[in-house]
Amino acid sequence: MKLYDLDVSGNCYKVRLLCSLLGVTVELIPVDFMGGAHKRSPVIDLNAFAQVPVLEDGDVILRDSQAILVYVARKWGGEAWLPTDAESMARVMQWLMVAENEIARGPGDARLHDKFKMNIDIAAAREKAARILTIMDRHLEKREWLVLDRPTVADIACMPYVALGWEGGVPLDPYPAIAAWVERIKKLPSFIGMPGL
Amino acid sequence: MKLYDLDVSGNCYKVRLLCSLLGVTVELIPVDFMGGAHKRSPVIDLNAFAQVPVLEDGDVILRDSQAILVYVARKWGGEAWLPTDAESMARVMQWLMVAENEIARGPGDARLHDKFKMNIDIAAAREKAARILTIMDRHLEKREWLVLDRPTVADIACMPYVALGWEGGVPLDPYPAIAAWVERIKKLPSFIGMPGL
Repeated sequence: MKLYDLDVSGNCYKVRLLCSLLGVTVELIPVDFMGGAHKRSPVIDLNAFAQVPVLEDGDVILRDSQAILVYVARKWGGEAWLPTDAESMARVMQWLMVAENEIARGPGDARLHDKFKMNIDIAAAREKAARILTIMDRHLEKREWLVLDRPTVADIACMPYVALGWEGGVPLDPYPAIAAWVERIKKLPSFIGMPGL
Repeated sequence: MKLYDLDVSGNCYKVRLLCSLLGVTVELIPVDFMGGAHKRSPVIDLNAFAQVPVLEDGDVILRDSQAILVYVARKWGGEAWLPTDAESMARVMQWLMVAENEIARGPGDARLHDKFKMNIDIAAAREKAARILTIMDRHLEKREWLVLDRPTVADIACMPYVALGWEGGVPLDPYPAIAAWVERIKKLPSFIGMPGL
């Protein structure tokens, strides 16, 4: 299995992290993003969206970090990381959508602006960050993990850009329950980090 | 099962549509969105994000239209609308993420600007719309449905805001394969429409 990868991408990192937690070997293929390699062959042929990560597992080519987490969890994680009963799966899905939407547009965009100098409305990104982090902090006050009583792909999908928010001027000091949850994830067996974490 | 609902919301509509296709009865509870009812009890108590749809099925309370589709499909649709093998599920997930991200930020936001006078960068929304619709049109040129050889929740999640794009100045004329796919969905047994469709 190959992962077209960028070391500073939280979306690539979440795939690397789940593979490490599950003990799945994945060959990392670094993509020279700053050099525009994602807009050229072979990446653009594998993913018309011109983004990383891209997962290649034999004939299976997948884009979108949340979808790749679903694939890895279903293929190698059994029911543990992504349960298939209607309620549990839908609850995990709610947070995969938060990762794709509110976290990306909040702390994710704030980091893209500050760290990578992208043309983004930083005030709007920080406002969205405060909104979602307030909701998450309240949610985590009474529980150890986002869904169920164990870590799932929901936690893996949501953690990176939340924990990297300080690189976009969104530190976790006002959100103690989130900070404790990040530390909990860091203590999982076979946890790996990434730059900035 | 109750759905806190707004008739002009494509996100609420996709839940109504899947329930109709599956023959599942759902009690619609209209939410006076323009009057701010989503920011007050009971909706805000059920969904801290202050959004519709919200699904209430006994003790199960769910937010986010894509997550609700997953719930309904898993609970009443068996493997038909959301297969659970790793590859098929991940492929469906890719498009649920497109619904949550690129379609919402493209044709969805363009409609919010034009139809509901929301403060949105309309040029950016139309540019994002053109980008995702071009990719979707190319994808649908060689296939009848977004994933597999039958309709899945991927099609139900992606169709509404694509088909409603004309209300945001994003008609489907340049995208004949998408237009044909929308017509295919409209011909499914027990299909229901919504205002603007």
